Amino acid sequence: MKRVDINCDLGESFGQYVLGCDDDIMNHITSANIACGFHAGDYATMRRTVALAADKGVKMGAHPGLPDLQGFGRRNMALLKGEAFELTLYQLGALEAFTRAQGVKLSHVKPHGALYNMAAVSEQLSEEIARAVHAFDPELLLYGLSGSELTKAGERVGLTVSHEVFADRTYQEDGTLTPRSQDGSLITDDTAAVRQVIQMIKQGTVTTLTGKVIPIQADTICIHGDADHALLFARKLREALIKEEVAITSPQSAAKKGV
Amino acid sequence: MKRVDINCDLGESFGQYVLGCDDDIMNHITSANIACGFHAGDYATMRRTVALAADKGVKMGAHPGLPDLQGFGRRNMALLKGEAFELTLYQLGALEAFTRAQGVKLSHVKPHGALYNMAAVSEQLSEEIARAVHAFDPELLLYGLSGSELTKAGERVGLTVSHEVFADRTYQEDGTLTPRSQDGSLITDDTAAVRQVIQMIKQGTVTTLTGKVIPIQADTICIHGDADHALLFARKLREALIKEEVAITSPQSAAKKGV
Amino acid sequence: MKRVDINCDLGESFGQYVLGCDDDIMNHITSANIACGFHAGDYATMRRTVALAADKGVKMGAHPGLPDLQGFGRRNMALLKGEAFELTLYQLGALEAFTRAQGVKLSHVKPHGALYNMAAVSEQLSEEIARAVHAFDPELLLYGLSGSELTKAGERVGLTVSHEVFADRTYQEDGTLTPRSQDGSLITDDTAAVRQVIQMIKQGTVTTLTGKVIPIQADTICIHGDADHALLFARKLREALIKEEVAITSPQSAAKKGV
Amino acid sequence: MKRVDINCDLGESFGQYVLGCDDDIMNHITSANIACGFHAGDYATMRRTVALAADKGVKMGAHPGLPDLQGFGRRNMALLKGEAFELTLYQLGALEAFTRAQGVKLSHVKPHGALYNMAAVSEQLSEEIARAVHAFDPELLLYGLSGSELTKAGERVGLTVSHEVFADRTYQEDGTLTPRSQDGSLITDDTAAVRQVIQMIKQGTVTTLTGKVIPIQADTICIHGDADHALLFARKLREALIKEEVAITSPQSAAKKGV
Repeated sequence: MKRVDINCDLGESFGQYVLGCDDDIMNHITSANIACGFHAGDYATMRRTVALAADKGVKMGAHPGLPDLQGFGRRNMALLKGEAFELTLYQLGALEAFTRAQGVKLSHVKPHGALYNMAAVSEQLSEEIARAVHAFDPELLLYGLSGSELTKAGERVGLTVSHEVFADRTYQEDGTLTPRSQDGSLITDDTAAVRQVIQMIKQGTVTTLTGKVIPIQADTICIHGDADHALLFARKLREALIKEEVAITSPQSAAKKGV
Repeated sequence: MKRVDINCDLGESFGQYVLGCDDDIMNHITSANIACGFHAGDYATMRRTVALAADKGVKMGAHPGLPDLQGFGRRNMALLKGEAFELTLYQLGALEAFTRAQGVKLSHVKPHGALYNMAAVSEQLSEEIARAVHAFDPELLLYGLSGSELTKAGERVGLTVSHEVFADRTYQEDGTLTPRSQDGSLITDDTAAVRQVIQMIKQGTVTTLTGKVIPIQADTICIHGDADHALLFARKLREALIKEEVAITSPQSAAKKGV
Repeated sequence: MKRVDINCDLGESFGQYVLGCDDDIMNHITSANIACGFHAGDYATMRRTVALAADKGVKMGAHPGLPDLQGFGRRNMALLKGEAFELTLYQLGALEAFTRAQGVKLSHVKPHGALYNMAAVSEQLSEEIARAVHAFDPELLLYGLSGSELTKAGERVGLTVSHEVFADRTYQEDGTLTPRSQDGSLITDDTAAVRQVIQMIKQGTVTTLTGKVIPIQADTICIHGDADHALLFARKLREALIKEEVAITSPQSAAKKGV
Repeated sequence: MKRVDINCDLGESFGQYVLGCDDDIMNHITSANIACGFHAGDYATMRRTVALAADKGVKMGAHPGLPDLQGFGRRNMALLKGEAFELTLYQLGALEAFTRAQGVKLSHVKPHGALYNMAAVSEQLSEEIARAVHAFDPELLLYGLSGSELTKAGERVGLTVSHEVFADRTYQEDGTLTPRSQDGSLITDDTAAVRQVIQMIKQGTVTTLTGKVIPIQADTICIHGDADHALLFARKLREALIKEEVAITSPQSAAKKGV
């Protein structure tokens, strides 16, 4: 039986500012990537989000980002050598303190935004991030863009990696996402998005924007949690996966159950 | 044989800004309180400071502060209920990630500046801080102003506490420090400062500004590390302690050696 | 004919975080207090909000706050001597740059949150704020809690002040607001809130929580802009004021027209 | 008679953190570029630095940087469209509030660090910065790398520009600075650095790292103010300029005196 994990970025509120429908989306996912206070999130939000995920039985991961709250960690920044290692480590530790106080375990790490995108194409950044995760806890799973430098670095340092795919983004012939700045980068039709996911999981392929069928590994699907439509899509996706007899489960649970 | 720990706040540089003579002062202390990125410090400084302390064999503690870099954590802030718990937990985790990656253990926690001072007189704040430390790791020592609400809360939640005294500050009849805003709050003469420390350790008393002799517990002495004079004083203090046959050792090492 | 100004805090979004229904509430007010990047707001939000207010013909004021984005400027902080002067000046200048680039004039200043509340009862803080406003532009109006230290300081340094009242808060016998922590601090019934406003404007009095009628000066009413209900209340208030033949106009326009 | 301006970045302390020998270097320069609170500086430092410059009769300019205190504004960041305009405007306004309160005039603008370097080669960024300066005050001088996109944009929008050269950096054949990452980028010998400056001013040329002589416009020389050696070099440079009969004067004073 095929299986897939559904992950979502959560805990991205800050102080007085509320972002995302965390309570609702928690019901539709198996893994939560929790912001750690750099690009979003703060200590109160982290505590609340960890408690919520624990209550819902959702796996918790750290979602470290660039130190750029104003840009929501989406602006590329030129990091110094060693900085990606350090900022990953710092944020991992900060979040793990909350899972520990809650009596639950941290299970994975997924870099956020510009850090995720820069790492996907940079061996050096990916190496630093992977080494930080490994130094902190070699049992942690590393989530990265399917087939990217980040998943490669994770495998190289000895981590278990989770290849991430996107339902609502189109792919190029080299397996990378079509940049948002280009036409056709987004799949706005829910049915088409669900169809792409099913193909990626069942066939292990994706049809590129140019119509070519290329191989892709789909361990985990990223969905959004920041709008009413996101919740609707999450529900549609779950229904389709169940109908197609794809097990929806976190990688850790899958491993335990021998899925 | 009497024994005492000498601690110092370190790792308080930030980005381009350098503060403190960390390299030099490390030779004179047994415990380093390392800033965690809120009132001072950043991930690069934390990594460097942990490596330095490990190299020198100095015990490492977290030095969590208020989220106020501009005020260096010295401005009192009205925290929400739960905030002291959360900000302590966050900073503990962040620093512990670096000790873990360095292969060493975090040994204690000492709140910084306004957080330390507000906790000294607030049962609620102290309770939150102590509970955060305990939830993170009940083996950690909690450093607080000798005889304050913070040491009381630490003992109440089951932590081992370290009663801190100051060499260069005078005391009031109720055992609290004379506020800096008052005349006579500082002891500027090194010889008098050293004499006060020796009395606190050997007699277990301190002579207040008004001339009264009151009891005080002196487990650890706080020294400064931010100026040439600080280094000079550190040396004088060490010499006096050795002459008086007071063992200079971290509380953890003392416990291990049965001092 | 009686007249009153309706003001609202706006431009409090930050980066990715959206707060308030600025577009809608602009239709119901005569003066906008625009956040300046300390407790909320950022340079992009400031530019957009100034453009919006200019488009709607709403008077623009600076809404300086404490340097505390995480606490939304609502946590009391112990400021150093001179800091209230400096942070007011900084934020005034920052906002005025945007009104200048837009070709419009800055018309008033209203401190935010904890700064407003601390100033209301502190002669020293109020003096610093008032002097900063006067040094920047003596033509600016200073908004403060009706009858507070802030309005007194404004008058003392030679500024025109606007005495602010609240529709949905109850008053104590000394003319101050009932603290939010006490029962009965809020007026949740819209009709009662509107009635209080009308009484304040037409009779120049307010009935305290204890039932006593005391004098109050009501130059400007503060309304909220952060929820659907806020918009509804704004509409009700306008209708009631029009029915009662109270002119709704900014203080500056009132002065020009000789109202 | 040839003339040149000597400028220096100042006011880069932050809170407890002190950077630069501002008091001393003020005696050796004609123009001070004052940090505005983004990459460095804070409201207290700005007030103090403006007062100091006013006291010494040194021209004051805004030194806006990227919103990145941790990176000291030296890390390249991908800005959104409009952001360079907005952050320049914000910082200009903030600083001008202090010059206004001091009763002096702001005279120029020089972007800092990564913003300066990115603008030097980006027409779009330079256009945004130049338009912000012009919108704020068309009388302000814009300082930029000699012959760069920034000086071009400044001239295009109608500003007076000041072409900046560096004493201790080598140049490439296209007139740009040799990147710091390359060998030979720095001139560490003071005599050679002084000689380069004299050649730039008197001949209007510079000898590139490869030995070629290319034309360069030298209106203003940037010197450092952050170390003992900086002060020493400043003195040597002044002496050499006086000996060579080059007038040391700010561009504004030069214009007034018809130099």
